[in-house]
Amino acid sequence: MTQQFADRMYSVKRSFIREILKVVDDPSIISFAGGLPNPKSFPVEEVTAATIKVMKESGESAMQYSTTEGYLPLREYIARRYAKYGIKADAGEILITTGSQQGLDLIGKIFLNKGDTVAVERPTYLAAIQSFGMYEPRFVDVPLMGDGVDVEALRQVLESGPKLFYSVPSFQNPTGITYSHEKRKQAADAFKDCDAVFIEDNPYGDIRFMGEDLPPMRRYMGSGVITMGTFSKTISPGMRLGWLYAPSEIMDKLITAKQAADLHTSYFVQRVVYQYLADNDVEGHIKKIQSMYKVQRDAMVHAIERYFPAGVEYTKPEGGMFLWVILPEGLSSTKLFDMAIQDKVAFVPGEAFFIDGSGRNTLRLNYSSSDEARIEAGIRRLAKAINTLLEESKNDIIDIRW
Amino acid sequence: MTQQFADRMYSVKRSFIREILKVVDDPSIISFAGGLPNPKSFPVEEVTAATIKVMKESGESAMQYSTTEGYLPLREYIARRYAKYGIKADAGEILITTGSQQGLDLIGKIFLNKGDTVAVERPTYLAAIQSFGMYEPRFVDVPLMGDGVDVEALRQVLESGPKLFYSVPSFQNPTGITYSHEKRKQAADAFKDCDAVFIEDNPYGDIRFMGEDLPPMRRYMGSGVITMGTFSKTISPGMRLGWLYAPSEIMDKLITAKQAADLHTSYFVQRVVYQYLADNDVEGHIKKIQSMYKVQRDAMVHAIERYFPAGVEYTKPEGGMFLWVILPEGLSSTKLFDMAIQDKVAFVPGEAFFIDGSGRNTLRLNYSSSDEARIEAGIRRLAKAINTLLEESKNDIIDIRW
Repeated sequence: MTQQFADRMYSVKRSFIREILKVVDDPSIISFAGGLPNPKSFPVEEVTAATIKVMKESGESAMQYSTTEGYLPLREYIARRYAKYGIKADAGEILITTGSQQGLDLIGKIFLNKGDTVAVERPTYLAAIQSFGMYEPRFVDVPLMGDGVDVEALRQVLESGPKLFYSVPSFQNPTGITYSHEKRKQAADAFKDCDAVFIEDNPYGDIRFMGEDLPPMRRYMGSGVITMGTFSKTISPGMRLGWLYAPSEIMDKLITAKQAADLHTSYFVQRVVYQYLADNDVEGHIKKIQSMYKVQRDAMVHAIERYFPAGVEYTKPEGGMFLWVILPEGLSSTKLFDMAIQDKVAFVPGEAFFIDGSGRNTLRLNYSSSDEARIEAGIRRLAKAINTLLEESKNDIIDIRW
Repeated sequence: MTQQFADRMYSVKRSFIREILKVVDDPSIISFAGGLPNPKSFPVEEVTAATIKVMKESGESAMQYSTTEGYLPLREYIARRYAKYGIKADAGEILITTGSQQGLDLIGKIFLNKGDTVAVERPTYLAAIQSFGMYEPRFVDVPLMGDGVDVEALRQVLESGPKLFYSVPSFQNPTGITYSHEKRKQAADAFKDCDAVFIEDNPYGDIRFMGEDLPPMRRYMGSGVITMGTFSKTISPGMRLGWLYAPSEIMDKLITAKQAADLHTSYFVQRVVYQYLADNDVEGHIKKIQSMYKVQRDAMVHAIERYFPAGVEYTKPEGGMFLWVILPEGLSSTKLFDMAIQDKVAFVPGEAFFIDGSGRNTLRLNYSSSDEARIEAGIRRLAKAINTLLEESKNDIIDIRW
């Protein structure tokens, strides 16, 4: 017998990153490839204590089925937390999801017909491409500049009538770039009189370790925006706990889609995480993560400054977990990967983050999952590989001239 | 601004059951409406102990991202457990899902193009309709008989080339009906030389409290079948932990879809549940649930025998959580619902389980979430409402004659 799969399955590839992660499972490899938070930041003891408390006080309830929307006190907590940005969120506008990734799937599901247009940043988070890709849209991209999206290009793209614009305005994955206050205002302005929905993915917003904290796009836009959030970077990704913050007319459809997708997110996890949040100094905990990542980010930036050859450009993120490197035109980061892995250092070739296979001279480096010593050693090895690649490319040119 | 949602969102309704569950939230109502396991069966203390152990021994790992496929020892445990039915499952054929419901969504996603045909039982589990419905298929149904599907009707439907046949062969939701050994063989035979995939949803298989245990369809079919399983009925539904057991060529696509859907199921939950399974007498625990539900099932069957008027038919399930009632032709279970709720007893009108709005004289009763006294009282009240409805319908006939 022959299985006939849906058309969508022939256009979607598995995540290149997750395939790479399998290659670099070897602990002797210094990996800048993953997107893993530093496990030292996980509040293991506090979450254990929260579990014991929940199970003692309401174990049977925590193990039972619950509502699709999610645990109300948890949604109220999330809603309240937006107040620091001057945003009045209502718990009814918050839907608990099984990680942020599920948020992407639900958004794709409620908005996208086959052939609809989705605009993304250039480069963009590739799991978004993967999730939205399941609904067979057409992708277009809008270039990123150092201070956020190219607004003129965004305006042009919006004129072509996309359903969604997907963006990571703070400490973007993969580039580490953050929209400035001015860019946020301009981007919001571009969405006036426009039916496209701004999808604001904000997994790293809390992990700002320098510069001025900026409000989410919701603050600039009012409506027409869905904000995605997660506890993956502040508590634990293994919990798979995220949320969508959306206007009520959109929320209604999201709940219907969520119900069909998995009924509800683990209620046990929701109860445990809420108990953790209620009983601990969460803001203090987040500050610790910020300090930890700042040390790691500084170690990487300093090692790059010290070891990378001239002509290699890179971003200096003010938060988040990633840094972006642009090699001189003509060099291939895939080739660099093959060389670097011989010397036991890994990263993600940037090509994976472009919808058209361009960006061949770019790469993404993660600093949150390696300590200072390994970052220093890894960047040194990577620099060596870049130098070798540069030498080879010069020889190529000589060969051609010859 | 006006949101344009995807076409699929205009064809899918929210679960009628979940809407009913909101109505019957009042604890003074005796509810046979839900599909809730008895919370007394939840191993609260054992799961707490398992959490403490996991967090102590490998807390950082349990809170980190993990693989899409799921925790290997858990998948191995699940695979091993099929051996008692003479099925040699490999852990590579098991994918951990966020509850069984996600299994439905993933199956819909990898198989269904808009307009493809999905065959279901008549009546069927309505959350399957909801999940598959998101991919805009055409539904056809195959009648259920007392000992399983009508095989002749199934053969005819298979000739029309459906992509999937969705079935709950053991203690079906909503009817409580179980395919006999003979029916399983015949159904498997009907799938020979046929490209349709048999989707075997088996959430209740372990909850058999009388009769002979029968192997899953996988045993009868070899390939061409995806078996869905869950810990929702044996450990806890609030955990949201299920699995798909599928041949490797299908598994490959399922993993791709799962990755896009939520990266992976809560790893914390997977580790905790595996620890619980490893450290406890699970088979003994399941036997306790069987005994508990048998008492509740018997209480309901006996109360029905005692109180229901002649002409009302009902199933006598050998396992699971539901029993099915057929009122005399012409009586409306929706009308009965309105009457019964006044007397503080609730159930699900059967209409919700038919793809064409028929079955108006049927209803589903859940016995697993009420104790014997409440079952007795609830069935007595329900009988009173049925008698009133019967009286009224006689008067209607008299009126018409008049």
